[in-house]
Amino acid sequence: MTDLTLLGLGDMGAALARTWLAAGRSLTVWNRTPARAEPFGDAAVATAAEAVAASRLIVVCLLDDASVGAALADVDLTGKDVVNLTTSTPAQARARAEWARERGARFLDGGIMAVPPMIGGPEAYIFYSGSRELFDLHADVLAVPAGTKYVGEDPGYAALHDVALLCAMNGMFGGVAHAFALIRNEDIAPTAFAPLLADWLKAMADVAHLHADQLESGDYRKGVVSNLAMQVAGIPTLLDTTKDQGVSPELLTPYLSLMRRRLSEGHGDEDTVGIVDLLTQPKVPA
Amino acid sequence: MTDLTLLGLGDMGAALARTWLAAGRSLTVWNRTPARAEPFGDAAVATAAEAVAASRLIVVCLLDDASVGAALADVDLTGKDVVNLTTSTPAQARARAEWARERGARFLDGGIMAVPPMIGGPEAYIFYSGSRELFDLHADVLAVPAGTKYVGEDPGYAALHDVALLCAMNGMFGGVAHAFALIRNEDIAPTAFAPLLADWLKAMADVAHLHADQLESGDYRKGVVSNLAMQVAGIPTLLDTTKDQGVSPELLTPYLSLMRRRLSEGHGDEDTVGIVDLLTQPKVPA
Ligand SMILES: NC(=O)c1ccc[n+]([C@@H]2O[C@H](COP(=O)([O-])OP(=O)(O)OC[C@H]3O[C@@H](n4cnc5c(N)ncnc54)[C@H](OP(=O)(O)O)[C@@H]3O)[C@@H](O)[C@H]2O)c1
Ligand SMILES: NC(=O)c1ccc[n+]([C@@H]2O[C@H](COP(=O)([O-])OP(=O)(O)OC[C@H]3O[C@@H](n4cnc5c(N)ncnc54)[C@H](OP(=O)(O)O)[C@@H]3O)[C@@H](O)[C@H]2O)c1
Repeated sequence: MTDLTLLGLGDMGAALARTWLAAGRSLTVWNRTPARAEPFGDAAVATAAEAVAASRLIVVCLLDDASVGAALADVDLTGKDVVNLTTSTPAQARARAEWARERGARFLDGGIMAVPPMIGGPEAYIFYSGSRELFDLHADVLAVPAGTKYVGEDPGYAALHDVALLCAMNGMFGGVAHAFALIRNEDIAPTAFAPLLADWLKAMADVAHLHADQLESGDYRKGVVSNLAMQVAGIPTLLDTTKDQGVSPELLTPYLSLMRRRLSEGHGDEDTVGIVDLLTQPKVPA
Repeated sequence: MTDLTLLGLGDMGAALARTWLAAGRSLTVWNRTPARAEPFGDAAVATAAEAVAASRLIVVCLLDDASVGAALADVDLTGKDVVNLTTSTPAQARARAEWARERGARFLDGGIMAVPPMIGGPEAYIFYSGSRELFDLHADVLAVPAGTKYVGEDPGYAALHDVALLCAMNGMFGGVAHAFALIRNEDIAPTAFAPLLADWLKAMADVAHLHADQLESGDYRKGVVSNLAMQVAGIPTLLDTTKDQGVSPELLTPYLSLMRRRLSEGHGDEDTVGIVDLLTQPKVPA
């Protein structure tokens, strides 16, 4: 028996495997296309079934949820501890947990908050949710490639945290793209502008703490520094500048529209956090 | 003569005034509605003309560009150094600089990157652009309420930097709202989630440096860690989760659509920075 088995040696799986080997853990690996397993020499076996038989702890890092089902369709998982690091939706992770349970395995889902070059470095971490027992038992092994953050017994919560952070990141990246578009064709070097932009966003990211406090208390006026009415008053400056610079407003207008809608519903003295209500409440039919 | 004159004692103007008084600068202040000037006692005068006559350095912090024109319509500005901290678009700032020049005044425009409670604190700063001579001459006085960042002779550049950062912030805030919406109705405390979200966004904000480098070199493959094809492959997980959580995708889809459009134009091996091209290039007519 080896310390753990890893299924999947794509970019991410290979990065994970290298950290465990470097840390002196005994590893069995398998990849559908054998060429990708060659660099791992004796650690590689020919079938998923052989790989699963070789360890109690089975880490899975395949393309998507469907590939997990396909790769393990005929494999005996009885008594195994399955840790699935394949990106999934919360619903897929919950269904996969149930699937594992039916096959006599314990299940933990993970969401990797890193790209392969970050694996083994100080910034990478992985969200885990599902069996707390399994997480505690293998905490040391799991901590080798990346930091670990256990976020609950619900096997969907790792995926939910993962997706929520990626969505927030996409919003920020959209804002970054819009900002770079505004200074394009001007005598402003992007590399001179970038530190201003990055530092500003880092300072403003702390809005998450304020909004969390407001959401938890239900008091959207709590600690507000720049209320919705003031924010909406500033909208024309943003839109006029965007237009003057010849930039499409498509990344900007959705948030501004929600601010205006919330203001029109009488929440001008509140923080913009009320937009969360608009995103989660069904629209009133016209 | 006093060290400086400040026109406008709204929330922001009053905060600025207090820092100059606390720093021992002699100040003349004016506000359209006299009641707001009362806390400043002898420093307050009855008309804008009197206030302007009392100093060489005139700082203006009124509601908007139109109010600056209204307040100073009949006031002699000959030989004055006008620093306009009123929020404007770049075009308004440029026109205001020309307006000041015609009246025999030097002009500097400013964009305040702070809310009033931050004024006088370590995080607040103000972008300045326009007359470098004027900026250097008054650098000490201007540094009292907030840090200073001079961004060029073009009087529109302070406003452009200001607007660009606010637009980026709105993008990030949209992402934050979407993330909080996703965890709503789950057994996840917003205040437990907030540090994960804020730290993640702070780490990811450094994308600005990478994208600036790519924009400057024109090589959108330079240093790419997660290319457009991989990002687009992850889109269904984001959208499916958003749908499953009953959250409106309206803040998420515009950026995802631009990623897909850019991919469809054959840029799958590049970074997402190419979205800046889509925002600034005229759409090809159908
Ligand atoms: N790369 C990243 O930046 C990153 C970041 C966070 C999370 N992740 C997640 O990590 C997981 C792996 O990503 P990756 O970057 O390693 O992807 P990748 O390089 O594309 O590798 C995909 C892996 O899945 C295997 N696979 C695909 N379909 C299969 C099937 N039907 N049966 C068996 N194996 C199958 C592939 O095997 P073959 O070699 O035979 O094709 C390969 O090992 C994904 O869920 C991804 O979302 C990746
Ligand atoms: N507050 C912030 O968070 C913040 C942050 C960054 C930048 N800024 C910028 O700072 C500037 C001032 O903001 P604020 O928060 O102090 O606004 P505010 O509290 O609403 O005060 C507005 C000021 O403008 C004056 N005013 C309006 N119309 C006028 C007119 N036609 N003639 C003469 N005076 C007029 C008001 O005088 P009355 O008292 O007579 O009405 C008052 O002094 C704005 O450009 C704002 O965008 C504010």
